Amino acid sequence: MPIIIVNYKTYSEATGKKAVKLSKIAEDVNKETGVNISVAPQLADIKSVCDAVSIPVFAQHIDPILPGNSTGHVLLESVKEAGAIGTLINHSERRLKLCDIETIIARTRESDMVSVVCTNNAAVSEAAAALKPDIVSLEPPELIGTGIPVSKTKPEVVKDTVTLVRHVNPDVATLCGAGITKGEDVAAALNLGTMGVLVASGIVKAKDPHKVIMEFAEAITNSM
Amino acid sequence: MPIIIVNYKTYSEATGKKAVKLSKIAEDVNKETGVNISVAPQLADIKSVCDAVSIPVFAQHIDPILPGNSTGHVLLESVKEAGAIGTLINHSERRLKLCDIETIIARTRESDMVSVVCTNNAAVSEAAAALKPDIVSLEPPELIGTGIPVSKTKPEVVKDTVTLVRHVNPDVATLCGAGITKGEDVAAALNLGTMGVLVASGIVKAKDPHKVIMEFAEAITNSM
Amino acid sequence: MPIIIVNYKTYSEATGKKAVKLSKIAEDVNKETGVNISVAPQLADIKSVCDAVSIPVFAQHIDPILPGNSTGHVLLESVKEAGAIGTLINHSERRLKLCDIETIIARTRESDMVSVVCTNNAAVSEAAAALKPDIVSLEPPELIGTGIPVSKTKPEVVKDTVTLVRHVNPDVATLCGAGITKGEDVAAALNLGTMGVLVASGIVKAKDPHKVIMEFAEAITNSM
Amino acid sequence: MPIIIVNYKTYSEATGKKAVKLSKIAEDVNKETGVNISVAPQLADIKSVCDAVSIPVFAQHIDPILPGNSTGHVLLESVKEAGAIGTLINHSERRLKLCDIETIIARTRESDMVSVVCTNNAAVSEAAAALKPDIVSLEPPELIGTGIPVSKTKPEVVKDTVTLVRHVNPDVATLCGAGITKGEDVAAALNLGTMGVLVASGIVKAKDPHKVIMEFAEAITNSM
Repeated sequence: MPIIIVNYKTYSEATGKKAVKLSKIAEDVNKETGVNISVAPQLADIKSVCDAVSIPVFAQHIDPILPGNSTGHVLLESVKEAGAIGTLINHSERRLKLCDIETIIARTRESDMVSVVCTNNAAVSEAAAALKPDIVSLEPPELIGTGIPVSKTKPEVVKDTVTLVRHVNPDVATLCGAGITKGEDVAAALNLGTMGVLVASGIVKAKDPHKVIMEFAEAITNSM
Repeated sequence: MPIIIVNYKTYSEATGKKAVKLSKIAEDVNKETGVNISVAPQLADIKSVCDAVSIPVFAQHIDPILPGNSTGHVLLESVKEAGAIGTLINHSERRLKLCDIETIIARTRESDMVSVVCTNNAAVSEAAAALKPDIVSLEPPELIGTGIPVSKTKPEVVKDTVTLVRHVNPDVATLCGAGITKGEDVAAALNLGTMGVLVASGIVKAKDPHKVIMEFAEAITNSM
Repeated sequence: MPIIIVNYKTYSEATGKKAVKLSKIAEDVNKETGVNISVAPQLADIKSVCDAVSIPVFAQHIDPILPGNSTGHVLLESVKEAGAIGTLINHSERRLKLCDIETIIARTRESDMVSVVCTNNAAVSEAAAALKPDIVSLEPPELIGTGIPVSKTKPEVVKDTVTLVRHVNPDVATLCGAGITKGEDVAAALNLGTMGVLVASGIVKAKDPHKVIMEFAEAITNSM
Repeated sequence: MPIIIVNYKTYSEATGKKAVKLSKIAEDVNKETGVNISVAPQLADIKSVCDAVSIPVFAQHIDPILPGNSTGHVLLESVKEAGAIGTLINHSERRLKLCDIETIIARTRESDMVSVVCTNNAAVSEAAAALKPDIVSLEPPELIGTGIPVSKTKPEVVKDTVTLVRHVNPDVATLCGAGITKGEDVAAALNLGTMGVLVASGIVKAKDPHKVIMEFAEAITNSM
């Protein structure tokens, strides 16, 4: 079942009340189309967003810690109680140590939370898949925020990633992201064997986010 | 005007609903005694706590970033909109680069938020004071969580810190923390010239937090 | 062909002239027994050690950088020109980001240097093997420096690691380390399918390093 | 007494044998002019450079550690025994935590090594000076490697830094760096009250390094 995850990053357009508003737009499209649209707001906004909408909410990051003495860090239990059902891990703007990625995936597994590990190339995707997360999301850093879609510019990297991840562990799904701004980019991603897209500025900074999310969702329903 | 800041760290006893409950206890003592009791819950709990109580709420950490591409980081604007009036900076469990501490203090100043820079000794406190935060909070890491109160075990370090900070910038207040569990530890801190205490396990892990906060608050009212 | 790698860490007993002296002892045992004994001195000592002995010398760490603007970082070319033939990567005392491990392994491959990726458990070893280093070295952090040998205390973890690494990529060899102080620990490591050991305090802090290295080397010759 | 410190960074032009060669050129100019020209080669090159020349040699970085279990880190004792007489600290390409800067400065002081703390603006310079290093070196990161000289483009920042550093501690000298490529940039730096310059590409990447170092040295002798 295809999925769109919208990463709110630390954009002004998706902070505080605006995060709630954008999440309601995503929820509207979900209701209209039935497509799984998930959102990843900032930590301080998770609770408000979860209280306002019923679509799945992800944290953007959690730390490899247990409850205790970790001032200023992000505890899985805190984002789970706030309503998040999963978390991004190792986003290109928040790269993590290999051993910490393993610890975080293990913690999400024990806590029935969905783990989405971001990766920068096919080799790293293969290594990440060996750690048995739920999802690996390929995002070549050089394309992030450019509007040059990974699914159309680097189709072979996406395809290699899908193949390698599947080979290591058929239970791990692959997403792709970076430069996704149009429905056709989403369609291209699905054609390459991914389960969907991780998108940020393409939606958050769109003049009309509803229109863009709808276009993405339709690309998914058309592909099914 | 003396102050008690309660750092919730990532303790189970102060996560989610328990963070709200503990904050209400702190608010009760504030109402009963008039003493300024502030709390620093986890990021995901700031909004809930701010919605539930009227005492000042601090973030435990913010990142040296502007709105934009900083997935998984903590934006000042996000914690401010959630209701925080200030932030801890450079806690011993979240040490920061010197240049980032300067950037964060500058950001809090522009945004009218209160900056509390944590330090490990007198020399570092002096350097931190040069950056003109509102508050420097000395916490010798080796005493944190031990129940051995800095204000009684290392009075000369606290005294030196108060003197050095005042010398660098008379507008910067000094707190101390680490091992504070009793009213007499708070009284000792005030006698050494501090403006109060930063406390964590002494309150969060107390069997009866109301009793301990009340004891701390009374130590403050008795000293005035 | 089995191998012993001696990690000098930042021990006083293996800094500067003492690093050269210890390396000559290792070289003596190599000459006497024919066993491959490699050493990993500190960065500032690589050149002196390489000038003094003919056994293989490893760096303890290199950074994921190309020549250029990276003040204070470790460039592959600098340690290679100093005489190192390979490098440790991701030691438990110098953990790295997943994407940086991949970059460093790729750089060593292009430069014909030997890559030894340290790991903390079987899952991480499997992920590391997917990145195609020459060697994966399992070292459970909790046993490092304890004298409790991983090869005798956690044989199942070593065995699992050997199996998983071989499954992912049969060209990747496995070492193990942590708590190795006796010849029988080395023999146990070989029996579990490893290609040898990564050892530090067991040799560097030994009263008679020559005796201990000899004991290790004999465990290897006896196993062949 | 004015000083020029040449930071070799990880430039190809100043790695291995080329580091030794460039150091000999610097030594030649020192002999011809009497001006203090120091060099900061990569860690793996410190020993070779110190063995080849008699001018002062700095490390580019050391870690806040004591001898022991710190694989892949840089021990003060290792660079000192290799011949370094001091170290850069907190370069813009290797920023450090505030508490680590304090620890490193304290370690250099105990070991009679010269500490040069790099800073990015006047406020951070003031804080660094409070830690009592020997030298604070202001380098606005946005000018590094540009050829736009800090001493001519941002004279007020250099002047403020000199004033603030002197006010905090008259024993701390100030250098400046970034964009320094000509003798007149050095002269401008001295006119603003600095004790000299920290320079990298302006010399390392010069077609004729001897000529540029000589030009810098003459700017110093002319100013005296």
